[in-house]
Amino acid sequence: MKSESASPRLRIVVVNPTTATDEDGSAAAQARRGAALRIGLLESGYDIVASLPADIFLPERIAQLQPDLIIADSESDARDVLEHIVLATRAAPRPIVLFTDDQDESSVEAAMAAGVTAYIVAGLQPERVKPVLDVALARFRRERKLLDELSETRQKLAERKVVERAKGLLMARHALSEEQAYQKLRSMAMNKNLKLAEIAQRILDVEDLLG
Amino acid sequence: MKSESASPRLRIVVVNPTTATDEDGSAAAQARRGAALRIGLLESGYDIVASLPADIFLPERIAQLQPDLIIADSESDARDVLEHIVLATRAAPRPIVLFTDDQDESSVEAAMAAGVTAYIVAGLQPERVKPVLDVALARFRRERKLLDELSETRQKLAERKVVERAKGLLMARHALSEEQAYQKLRSMAMNKNLKLAEIAQRILDVEDLLG
Repeated sequence: MKSESASPRLRIVVVNPTTATDEDGSAAAQARRGAALRIGLLESGYDIVASLPADIFLPERIAQLQPDLIIADSESDARDVLEHIVLATRAAPRPIVLFTDDQDESSVEAAMAAGVTAYIVAGLQPERVKPVLDVALARFRRERKLLDELSETRQKLAERKVVERAKGLLMARHALSEEQAYQKLRSMAMNKNLKLAEIAQRILDVEDLLG
Repeated sequence: MKSESASPRLRIVVVNPTTATDEDGSAAAQARRGAALRIGLLESGYDIVASLPADIFLPERIAQLQPDLIIADSESDARDVLEHIVLATRAAPRPIVLFTDDQDESSVEAAMAAGVTAYIVAGLQPERVKPVLDVALARFRRERKLLDELSETRQKLAERKVVERAKGLLMARHALSEEQAYQKLRSMAMNKNLKLAEIAQRILDVEDLLG
């Protein structure tokens, strides 16, 4: 995510279901949906960098294209499409907007759990596309902030536990006071050019190995 | 939030902008919007327990009614309406769905920051109401889970810091080993029937008072 503002030159990748033969006319319906979406995106000035099928090559393509936002367009069951997109954005999360007609509550829950930023039912009118994407971007930024904060806090807590355990181990092993154990940890970390928690983890690992 | 499933008997409060005189016809437009929303809610089987103005009495009314979901309906600038709803849900967060025609990016950002669950632009067709609310509920549950996890992790980290500081203080004051200081904290906590972090905080408070 380079652009902080929701600029209309946002680079977008559209992901479509893989349709085989068209015996029931579903490919034709999907093509009509796709056209409405493309019109909405182009009229709002977005940059459609690619329109890709949801297949095993998606992660690689996404990694190459580095889009600002991914749109999944799937009239009915979107699970398969979403699965591929989730895999493709695991390393570098991006806002995912799903346009669908699937109102099933379990589909909604599954999509949220998979990390979909916006789940839009029956909302594929060209004039609605821009506000939907604007809201999705704002929501994505907010959710990222929250998730970053959570992982940072978890990390701090984990590091603190590791340092405390290593300190206790040094105190017991070498009959040190807490202060002495802490200073020993610090000087070991400085000598090895490691973080306090990293040297603490190494000490615990060695202890595990030695039993 | 009693109902876990997005049951159609969800109890809903609709909050409207306070309109004074109707010189520019905006009250009439708002009334038309309100009608479309009510039709959508009733056709989908929701229970509209009240339709309230966004005024200073809103927090009290929300506390009395305990709705499962709050809908704000505001064609243009929704900030005033949202401000009242945010105040009214601070103590007990509830999903907030905003229907509006305000596409301004700063309005979207402000609404997200204020805790709006769904920001729906130009989406007030009766048949779209139910999928929008279903998605909002799923999103609200996910966001609550995340926020709960964050505050729990923060709490643990804060408690750990307080306990460590109190332990260090006891060690210095009474020339205790870490283990002895910890045991002293534990027995004090048990005697007073307090959590370890609570007794640690009291020790630090007293230290602050005595300088």
